[in-house]
Amino acid sequence: MSLKALLDTLPIPILQAPMLGVSDHRLALAVSEAGGMGAFAGAGLAGADLGPAIAALKAQTERPFNVNLLITRPVAPGQDEIDLALARLAPWYAQSGAPLPEIPNQYAPDFEGQFSALIQAAPPVASFAFDVLTAAQVAALQAAGTYVIGTATTVAEAKAWAEVGADGVCAQGYEAGGHRGHFLADVGASLVGLLPLVATIRAVIDLPVIAAGGIMDGRGVAAVLALGASAAQMGTAFLLSDQATTSSPWRQALAAAPDEATRLTRAFTGRHARGLENRFMREMRSDEDLVPAYPVQNRLTQPLRAASTAAGDPEQISLWAGQGARLAATGDAGARVLRWWEEAKAASSQLSARLG
Amino acid sequence: MSLKALLDTLPIPILQAPMLGVSDHRLALAVSEAGGMGAFAGAGLAGADLGPAIAALKAQTERPFNVNLLITRPVAPGQDEIDLALARLAPWYAQSGAPLPEIPNQYAPDFEGQFSALIQAAPPVASFAFDVLTAAQVAALQAAGTYVIGTATTVAEAKAWAEVGADGVCAQGYEAGGHRGHFLADVGASLVGLLPLVATIRAVIDLPVIAAGGIMDGRGVAAVLALGASAAQMGTAFLLSDQATTSSPWRQALAAAPDEATRLTRAFTGRHARGLENRFMREMRSDEDLVPAYPVQNRLTQPLRAASTAAGDPEQISLWAGQGARLAATGDAGARVLRWWEEAKAASSQLSARLG
Repeated sequence: MSLKALLDTLPIPILQAPMLGVSDHRLALAVSEAGGMGAFAGAGLAGADLGPAIAALKAQTERPFNVNLLITRPVAPGQDEIDLALARLAPWYAQSGAPLPEIPNQYAPDFEGQFSALIQAAPPVASFAFDVLTAAQVAALQAAGTYVIGTATTVAEAKAWAEVGADGVCAQGYEAGGHRGHFLADVGASLVGLLPLVATIRAVIDLPVIAAGGIMDGRGVAAVLALGASAAQMGTAFLLSDQATTSSPWRQALAAAPDEATRLTRAFTGRHARGLENRFMREMRSDEDLVPAYPVQNRLTQPLRAASTAAGDPEQISLWAGQGARLAATGDAGARVLRWWEEAKAASSQLSARLG
Repeated sequence: MSLKALLDTLPIPILQAPMLGVSDHRLALAVSEAGGMGAFAGAGLAGADLGPAIAALKAQTERPFNVNLLITRPVAPGQDEIDLALARLAPWYAQSGAPLPEIPNQYAPDFEGQFSALIQAAPPVASFAFDVLTAAQVAALQAAGTYVIGTATTVAEAKAWAEVGADGVCAQGYEAGGHRGHFLADVGASLVGLLPLVATIRAVIDLPVIAAGGIMDGRGVAAVLALGASAAQMGTAFLLSDQATTSSPWRQALAAAPDEATRLTRAFTGRHARGLENRFMREMRSDEDLVPAYPVQNRLTQPLRAASTAAGDPEQISLWAGQGARLAATGDAGARVLRWWEEAKAASSQLSARLG
């Protein structure tokens, strides 16, 4: 078996994007059980909690699923950097009513610990973003029975994943919601629309490509398959689904979003990400290049975002969403997957008819 | 007959993008004769010259073709603005050996004159960018027997064209090379990837959509047709073709371009456009928001670009290209159109097989 064979024989080649904070077991199971492939975003869990979480998923389904981790290194920011970052956030915290956060011992779960737990738990598929694994890490996962997918925003990043032996590449288009996965060039050099991104990656590497970014329905699924992708990955399209844990103010903002409402911002987390533009994004715009790099700023704004979410205030929450946000659909996630597949079939029939 | 019927019955629903300075009669004829639809970029001609040029095309082919104009208004920049703009360009002119340009009487051909000539000449199709026509103008063209296509970079712009009665909309994705067509919001709010752009436009207007941006081969054509577009518009894909008048240094830069080599710039023309990044773009980056708006800066840099082109120096030329630039193909344009169509058929067959 290969990842390519797995994707080619999935009843429905729709992968749910691993959305940290949104996709828990319920969403992953709904998508996998419908015939697609669900994803569990494991990046927020320490290694000790990740293993049992994966085991629980394995116990609940025979279908393949994906566990996503974000590759980070331990950081030890200086006191000055933190003081400055907190001073910048102080007015926002004051407005939210939440106290400024204490300086944590750790800004993100230890990746090495997560990675060990992942190998132990051996999910069917694991995907990674923000950096590239070593060849030894990839080989260790594969030896455990896990296919490895690396996120690439450029051709060079796809090549880097191919060189360490990854089983497949997730091509993250400019359109995609949430964090950008770039790790070789700066963000400005890593914003390629999904169509040319898939085409240029496919031209130089011989691995299955999973297309992500702006795919909102079955027509979009058919489009990226026609383009040569082995599967479509959809995230924003699931944000309003019953099984997503999208917060209430986030759902409301999404349902009310005008056209072209998303922008890239570095202000929330110290790493560029796409979301519905709100007051925090607008007013932090001029300072966004100055905030500490991920995961420090991410950790420092978490209590602010939690308090604002609890208060129902969308203006200080990271409202991650892709450029197709307006087309996000409500209802049961599994039923949606089945419907998108029917739409894809209809699109394919129309295409066949046009091509004669 | 309707534009939709015309596109649906084109032997090959591939439209050649109207590329000012690149697409003369030869390229347009090659594409139209192959079964696609060629385009003649008429924006550089005064009304008196446009009519005969269209008549000559009509005389050479029975096939439909498109004439493109850029909607501009007469401008009368102040002496101070021009002096400042020329001072900024002076070191570049000095380097090129060309003299600073004289202040012209006119910065672009008069649009009203072009538009009158267009109605007189009545090409099968006319397309427009940079603004929207009035309903009366659209009706006048239609009465002359010309279908009207408006360029849209956002849903609101597509709606604006629908409201004045256009026959179709060309959805210009973020990926596209050359000038951005935005005219309602600023450029930052008008950069939508082609997939979500087509999907969101199709969701709200009932006109044929022509998809443009990042389509480089038959797979890309199949992808946008699956997405629901009535045709694919390709520009960069033709830049290296035999019939394109792409200059020699431009061709060389394109053939040697690394991945992700394009950026948006306002520096060459006073309107944002995508091209291969070169020294002029990099060094003018900090001033690009200050240069006079199109068409003034465009006119003021024309002699510089002409001199640099003549000298074979790619660093001071507008090397317009889209994000798929690396995949631009050489050879006969008509043969390419036929080949892309064969590729699209193969992609459609594979898609049908996958969808079962």
